[in-house]
Amino acid sequence: MKVQRVEMFVCPSATPADTSGLQKLADSGKIRPETLVALVGKTEGTGAHDDWGRVWADVALREWTAKFLGIPVDEVAKHVIFVLSGGCPGVITPHIAAVTRQWVEMPEGRPSNDKRLVVGRSGSDAMAPEEVGRMGQIRKVAEATRQAMSDAGLTDSKDVHLVMVKVPGLTTASIKDAESRGKTVVSHDLTFGPEGAGVYANDAAALGVAMALGEVPESKLSDEVVRRDWDLFSEVAMTSSGGEKRHGEVVVFGNSTASQSPLRIGHAVTKDFIDAEGVRTALRSAGVQFKDGLPDEADLGRLVHVFAKSVIPGSDQIRGQRITLLDDADAYQIGKALGGMLVASVTGRTTNYVSGGERNSHQGPPGGNIVAAVVRTD
Amino acid sequence: MKVQRVEMFVCPSATPADTSGLQKLADSGKIRPETLVALVGKTEGTGAHDDWGRVWADVALREWTAKFLGIPVDEVAKHVIFVLSGGCPGVITPHIAAVTRQWVEMPEGRPSNDKRLVVGRSGSDAMAPEEVGRMGQIRKVAEATRQAMSDAGLTDSKDVHLVMVKVPGLTTASIKDAESRGKTVVSHDLTFGPEGAGVYANDAAALGVAMALGEVPESKLSDEVVRRDWDLFSEVAMTSSGGEKRHGEVVVFGNSTASQSPLRIGHAVTKDFIDAEGVRTALRSAGVQFKDGLPDEADLGRLVHVFAKSVIPGSDQIRGQRITLLDDADAYQIGKALGGMLVASVTGRTTNYVSGGERNSHQGPPGGNIVAAVVRTD
Amino acid sequence: MKVQRVEMFVCPSATPADTSGLQKLADSGKIRPETLVALVGKTEGTGAHDDWGRVWADVALREWTAKFLGIPVDEVAKHVIFVLSGGCPGVITPHIAAVTRQWVEMPEGRPSNDKRLVVGRSGSDAMAPEEVGRMGQIRKVAEATRQAMSDAGLTDSKDVHLVMVKVPGLTTASIKDAESRGKTVVSHDLTFGPEGAGVYANDAAALGVAMALGEVPESKLSDEVVRRDWDLFSEVAMTSSGGEKRHGEVVVFGNSTASQSPLRIGHAVTKDFIDAEGVRTALRSAGVQFKDGLPDEADLGRLVHVFAKSVIPGSDQIRGQRITLLDDADAYQIGKALGGMLVASVTGRTTNYVSGGERNSHQGPPGGNIVAAVVRTD
Amino acid sequence: MKVQRVEMFVCPSATPADTSGLQKLADSGKIRPETLVALVGKTEGTGAHDDWGRVWADVALREWTAKFLGIPVDEVAKHVIFVLSGGCPGVITPHIAAVTRQWVEMPEGRPSNDKRLVVGRSGSDAMAPEEVGRMGQIRKVAEATRQAMSDAGLTDSKDVHLVMVKVPGLTTASIKDAESRGKTVVSHDLTFGPEGAGVYANDAAALGVAMALGEVPESKLSDEVVRRDWDLFSEVAMTSSGGEKRHGEVVVFGNSTASQSPLRIGHAVTKDFIDAEGVRTALRSAGVQFKDGLPDEADLGRLVHVFAKSVIPGSDQIRGQRITLLDDADAYQIGKALGGMLVASVTGRTTNYVSGGERNSHQGPPGGNIVAAVVRTD
Repeated sequence: MKVQRVEMFVCPSATPADTSGLQKLADSGKIRPETLVALVGKTEGTGAHDDWGRVWADVALREWTAKFLGIPVDEVAKHVIFVLSGGCPGVITPHIAAVTRQWVEMPEGRPSNDKRLVVGRSGSDAMAPEEVGRMGQIRKVAEATRQAMSDAGLTDSKDVHLVMVKVPGLTTASIKDAESRGKTVVSHDLTFGPEGAGVYANDAAALGVAMALGEVPESKLSDEVVRRDWDLFSEVAMTSSGGEKRHGEVVVFGNSTASQSPLRIGHAVTKDFIDAEGVRTALRSAGVQFKDGLPDEADLGRLVHVFAKSVIPGSDQIRGQRITLLDDADAYQIGKALGGMLVASVTGRTTNYVSGGERNSHQGPPGGNIVAAVVRTD
Repeated sequence: MKVQRVEMFVCPSATPADTSGLQKLADSGKIRPETLVALVGKTEGTGAHDDWGRVWADVALREWTAKFLGIPVDEVAKHVIFVLSGGCPGVITPHIAAVTRQWVEMPEGRPSNDKRLVVGRSGSDAMAPEEVGRMGQIRKVAEATRQAMSDAGLTDSKDVHLVMVKVPGLTTASIKDAESRGKTVVSHDLTFGPEGAGVYANDAAALGVAMALGEVPESKLSDEVVRRDWDLFSEVAMTSSGGEKRHGEVVVFGNSTASQSPLRIGHAVTKDFIDAEGVRTALRSAGVQFKDGLPDEADLGRLVHVFAKSVIPGSDQIRGQRITLLDDADAYQIGKALGGMLVASVTGRTTNYVSGGERNSHQGPPGGNIVAAVVRTD
Repeated sequence: MKVQRVEMFVCPSATPADTSGLQKLADSGKIRPETLVALVGKTEGTGAHDDWGRVWADVALREWTAKFLGIPVDEVAKHVIFVLSGGCPGVITPHIAAVTRQWVEMPEGRPSNDKRLVVGRSGSDAMAPEEVGRMGQIRKVAEATRQAMSDAGLTDSKDVHLVMVKVPGLTTASIKDAESRGKTVVSHDLTFGPEGAGVYANDAAALGVAMALGEVPESKLSDEVVRRDWDLFSEVAMTSSGGEKRHGEVVVFGNSTASQSPLRIGHAVTKDFIDAEGVRTALRSAGVQFKDGLPDEADLGRLVHVFAKSVIPGSDQIRGQRITLLDDADAYQIGKALGGMLVASVTGRTTNYVSGGERNSHQGPPGGNIVAAVVRTD
Repeated sequence: MKVQRVEMFVCPSATPADTSGLQKLADSGKIRPETLVALVGKTEGTGAHDDWGRVWADVALREWTAKFLGIPVDEVAKHVIFVLSGGCPGVITPHIAAVTRQWVEMPEGRPSNDKRLVVGRSGSDAMAPEEVGRMGQIRKVAEATRQAMSDAGLTDSKDVHLVMVKVPGLTTASIKDAESRGKTVVSHDLTFGPEGAGVYANDAAALGVAMALGEVPESKLSDEVVRRDWDLFSEVAMTSSGGEKRHGEVVVFGNSTASQSPLRIGHAVTKDFIDAEGVRTALRSAGVQFKDGLPDEADLGRLVHVFAKSVIPGSDQIRGQRITLLDDADAYQIGKALGGMLVASVTGRTTNYVSGGERNSHQGPPGGNIVAAVVRTD
């Protein structure tokens, strides 16, 4: 029986277009054209709408990957999923994590309860602009999530610890298209503000994951609950959206006994915006054992990577005291930076994947955020 | 023998002009006209040059204090020292801490090694604009620090845990004045940028404290080392400057056996920008005992207040990895916000005094920051 | 027959709380308790949500006015309308314009076609949160506009050149109130983003003015057209909204033969964001005659004040070329600053009232902005 | 006798990496490998330190040019000078202007007083870090300016209307290098703040131009006057600096009778920040004739391009009134945006080259800015 062997390599980037880390991995044979399945990273810059760092990174990484795989640039998307999140405010080191998957023979005698990292991918059906931020998008993401679980060889939702999703958002052109066909769209606001099309798309995607994993029953879902009923959420969905896309893309990370990976993944949610213990719980969930409540250097040495959201709370209260973050014109960037600090203060390193800055989300519970950790088992 | 009994009360502010918390303290008799010695707080707003929240807070608090003390507004400064730091980005709750000091008879039989909080104040001689950021300012702050120690009844520098200083900076007018007298000034840059007059003034003040406390020998000090030789620093100086001032003001906090206070203070410095352990060390220094490496809720319940700096490191490396904070146009605000998160993630609360955002400082070691904690002993 | 005699005095402000200009006007008798009808001004600061300059200015001006009128602070609103717009980016000098109105006997023999400035005010019925940004608000503003015209003695819409309106917006509390009564609200976004409650309120108010003046027939108005059908707009409405308000307030400025004012008002709309000629047209409309296409210093010496909006265009094209303003995180502030420059480059002064920064509006035609000018006739 | 024939083509850019406009010029034969001498443009993005739009544009344009010229990328600099200025806030359309120069036979019978556009280029000697912002840099720029004038065939300074200069700035590494050799540097501030190394370099370059053109006598120049004596300035120097450079680069634009160009250049300086008449004067200087004080559409149709600086004034007063721009955290971007509006409101178009945002400069007189215009003569 062939099982997965998944690896993850984190390369700091010196500039948005820096592919030298990937090239070293390629030169050493750690990543191979047939094993590379995903590039997930943070790109430097403001992360704002006019931040060209992420775009340049996407162009440069796609060119590098095309050359590495020996295929045209526009076919890269079929082979390698790109999740690039812009903006490294504060203590978030720009980096790219390369994820590889190979199929190896399962040895005899592995303990049946020793679950290891697996990864699965899927693309969704095309999503019309009128579906963005609504049930149409929710259902298509749910279906793609089920397919990606299947691709990962996962059947139990409890084994899923991270689902990264990219879905179409809205653009001036796609809104016009929908309205010319007599359809309405969820928002005319193209920003990531509280009523922006971008957050509606992200949140519909999160609810799609929640539906697929049974975190939220389908019966509770409707157009009306998106960004209204915050009690509905996923604990493992990290989603993003882009106007240029027509299809959704899903990458599922989980643990399985049918895996030969040296890695294991775990996750937790923070209870509020300053909950460092939530980050530690995520590390423990992945198998890091702490003496004395705190991980020591040896423990942290086994930590491969952390993926965290840093969504700004919908309330201006943290543990009973008022904060002014919601009033801050720079809240988007500061909110992301704060998540970076919360994670770095626990992991003792700055190469953490932290995205966020939006206000409120179905990604994680109200006020809390999702943290997933990948740990080396040996 | 009369000894000090110092108390500290932290009042969250609903708006910059909110004096309701102070009024409640006054109504309950916790603060009295003759015991109030300092108001130290964080005011909401951007903390930038055109943030009027701090100015409005100063006006409103000064009016309230004048009324409370039954004196004219312009005499308030003689009785109560104001340290208001603008900008509450992220998870810093706007608040005012009222410090009171009364003189009580020392009871018999107190163990001689039980040191408790004392506070002392002093004003400096007037500082000419040509002295700002230079030896003149350093020496005058050193002298005022010695006087404030004396006022606090402290003789050993090791008992000093926090020295808050306000000094004159430069203005267009004071530069003109100096130059008309044939003098030069340290900078024509009136911002808090790396060569700004504001940071030169702050850093001369920090070196003045370091000189008074023997942290830096006078022989190593000169105009040339200010903002050049980062190996010279104080571990307890938190300083600020304002163009409108002509004299320095110093408040010293320390522990003494000649004190009947229910409070104790301690401090530590972080080793780098993400060093949560440094914050925990400050708490331990003040007498909070942690089980299992982490303070529990009962421990934190005894914590009265934390004072922390969050100076941005001069280097773009944290534990060997690059961060992009130094390139960020919003670094001033984000740097401050990050310090707020580092402290809040340890203290489990957001009412912490955190100032900073400037790049590099003689307040604390290179890359590290000062954290002081006040704890209730019973 | 008693007719109005309206005057307008522009006082630059040295700080948000500066009332010295008003005090000088009071001391000289130019404004009197019984003649002061409105204070309209720009306050310094970022103009963002956490800009306390405007709040402080409001508090300080209201206290001054209460003292001037000899009434309690909370009765000031009954006598003097305050329109304070926050944010003076670029070349907009912070200032307060005091508007006075007295009733004087109309002399015989004034030419019947010589129209002069009149002003009228009105408050609207209370507006429920579910009415904000919808027909309820539109109708109540329309009614109040008609009343204010009547108060001004104006019967012909063509004589109306500026209608300043303040209406209630939404708050967390008022949304909760509406939803608890089974009502929906126009937006959960409390910002001034493209789908924000603030702009919906502003735009409903603008359409209310348009309805009252016959610029848009009532038959074309519905909840659905607000911020959707940009062909519906007013050429004279400058509106703002605040969550703290329950009623609308309207001030109408126009010209009438039944006026003894030394001033006259005119207005125009710019055709696009860089249309300096539109500003000149507004000056001409008020009676400034230009030789050679450009006003000379004598012409501009008769100019009392300019009121202008600077709404960011909904399109990223100006005269066929792309601009990137819509992508700019600071667009709100930059958009306002640009309007300030456009006006100042024509008027040759910086004490112009320029508000704006929001994206698209029913205040003025698509891409264009409203400019009103007040000119001394003698 | 061979004389120059210079052309200038302005291509709007759809993205920072957009070379389609250049490609069209190449396809049509308007630019040829042997005639292309300079690419001067504005790139979109924030223009701040972490704006990657400009860097990406530089990479993409350099690659395109290498391919076009059939040479390696690192030889492009020898053939084509790149002047890319980052940041298009407000109404500045991102664009690239291609400048071509060919040598043609001078026909008989051209009127001897008909001066047309010529261009000349030169590189300077290497500049050591200790020379940056000081006399060393001033002298080397002066020498390179003289050489570029010579290359342009210009002998009279009055015929020079625009000198674009790029010089080395300072970096952490180059400061370390200088100090290790016992040298001092002009500033440790690597920003473009008022005491930043970047503005010292820019201003030394401007004084170098002023020295070469005789605008400032060498006897008045010294290290001490840089950014201190604002009465010393050039009316035609637009300068920039970059840490990565070791040599200066100079491009001179002027008019000469020894030219067959269809273009002519002129310039003027604005008297203050809102002086639209200064922009019109620059157009007139280039030969645009205005009827009625304002250029009409036909006049503007002959306008090829405008180059303008928008340096923020050193004073907070414009025509006697206070502005708050100097206090604004976003002053760098807003200052640039305002210059863009001032020019666009006169030229009726947004494809203007406008750089700036720094505070005070030897580029232009105190408070004023340089504007150069290129006009088609036929």
